Amino acid sequence: MNICRFNGDRLGLVEGPNVFDVTAALRDLPAPAWPYPPGDPLIRHLDAIRTAIAAVRPRAPAVPLNSVTLNSPVTSPTKVMAAPANYALHVSIDAQDPGVNHGLHNKQLEGVDRPVDKLGLFLKASSSIVGPGEGIALNWLDRRNDHEVEVAVVIGKGGRDIPRQRAFAHIAGYMIGLDMTVRGTEDRSWRKSADSYTVFGPWLTTADAIEDPEKLTIWLDVNGEPRQKSSTGAMTVGIAELIEMCSHIYELHPGDVLMTGTPEGVSAVKPGDVITAGCTGLGEMQVAVRGKG
Amino acid sequence: MNICRFNGDRLGLVEGPNVFDVTAALRDLPAPAWPYPPGDPLIRHLDAIRTAIAAVRPRAPAVPLNSVTLNSPVTSPTKVMAAPANYALHVSIDAQDPGVNHGLHNKQLEGVDRPVDKLGLFLKASSSIVGPGEGIALNWLDRRNDHEVEVAVVIGKGGRDIPRQRAFAHIAGYMIGLDMTVRGTEDRSWRKSADSYTVFGPWLTTADAIEDPEKLTIWLDVNGEPRQKSSTGAMTVGIAELIEMCSHIYELHPGDVLMTGTPEGVSAVKPGDVITAGCTGLGEMQVAVRGKG
Repeated sequence: MNICRFNGDRLGLVEGPNVFDVTAALRDLPAPAWPYPPGDPLIRHLDAIRTAIAAVRPRAPAVPLNSVTLNSPVTSPTKVMAAPANYALHVSIDAQDPGVNHGLHNKQLEGVDRPVDKLGLFLKASSSIVGPGEGIALNWLDRRNDHEVEVAVVIGKGGRDIPRQRAFAHIAGYMIGLDMTVRGTEDRSWRKSADSYTVFGPWLTTADAIEDPEKLTIWLDVNGEPRQKSSTGAMTVGIAELIEMCSHIYELHPGDVLMTGTPEGVSAVKPGDVITAGCTGLGEMQVAVRGKG
Repeated sequence: MNICRFNGDRLGLVEGPNVFDVTAALRDLPAPAWPYPPGDPLIRHLDAIRTAIAAVRPRAPAVPLNSVTLNSPVTSPTKVMAAPANYALHVSIDAQDPGVNHGLHNKQLEGVDRPVDKLGLFLKASSSIVGPGEGIALNWLDRRNDHEVEVAVVIGKGGRDIPRQRAFAHIAGYMIGLDMTVRGTEDRSWRKSADSYTVFGPWLTTADAIEDPEKLTIWLDVNGEPRQKSSTGAMTVGIAELIEMCSHIYELHPGDVLMTGTPEGVSAVKPGDVITAGCTGLGEMQVAVRGKG
């Protein structure tokens, strides 16, 4: 099932070239009492909402997918976690470029087989999330801003100390993620957290629709020119082990997003560029780049 | 006004040795529609809730402060931001200790007058927040875990590109914050984000009660032994400028918390220790340290 948010506050079911407006399926979303429970409300109640979507689908109006503005299906995650330098060719090629490493990141990674063991994962601000239809507003127009395409894993069932053998049972679904990054000396959680620097879309593909998330092809073009293309099988530390690692540190909550690292081919973007990002089974999305207004 | 959360889901008004249970003031807290608005619901509606607190106060039952479990008044911030190395003596004393710097953090800061300009601010996971009554569960018992006491600024009115001259109008109030930290090579947003590594309390002191937040004395003892004591006037970059900096990167939302840096005197804690942290005008709190269960 491909579930999207569109036009701000509409819930959609994507089928081929159409979006069925299934917002009525949210009618029974329980109102939270204070203090609000952690996590994203759509994902927290996803099982019940999927049932409700199936119930309202026969009477749901269809609109063409290309006529709507796609937002991020996940809106209020407690945290967005991301694995640094989790593809070996990104480290051995991209990170050797002084414009990327700023004399720091190549040294951090010298002789390191598994960067996440040395660096941990980093956080991105939830306030930086946008959907593809909202586009990216570059915050530092005088510096280098790069695209990094990734598979974004949405946690469904929370927990602590989740063993890797059971990690897949904790996944609600997958999205394409863009981890937009300004190069420089600041902490990753600063350079990657400007408004619009986290793009999630085009929709949430529920976990049951993806046979093996570690055998997906992800790619990214800028203005139609290929820049990144790899298999998720090339990740240094795989999805299940990343979930195990994270859950040893902090409790995972429904809607938490785990960005799994970017493959080689990152490059700078400028206002006016259009990014196209895709992944086997997760769809494809176009994202326009502009300067901060 | 000193507003606390206690015993999990109770709202309290702290007056001297008593807490008045003013949970009834939350009755009119509006239920959010999906997608939930960003920010912490208590802080987003703080003006209306303060009026409601005043209305219910005459009939509110009082309980002794020392009989309740104090939780964090802020529960669902969109982000927790923190300024690294923002007191000069912390840099020139603490960061010279190899057990603190791990051969990295002293080098990062050599010859740097304003660390936040080089490092930006970092994020802490919202899932790491606890109140003083919940205590700290050390996540890495085989490594050095330090206390860092700070003044935590709670954003009341959100915004982007807030000039420092107007920054104080965006503050809802202040809390004492403990930025618990494991020493090592990982990103700050990992080492400082384990469950319970962000302690906020003992309550929220509203901004109108603090004449000058840059002239407060903060201190921290471990088992009754003094460890940290300084004035917030010793911050390298002050509160107003930090708000300006942050709001150039990301939109601030009601309930976002800005931790303003720790003064000299950080040291390791172990299970069984009791931390006492205090600040002029913000109260004092005791926090027990245990191992992760």
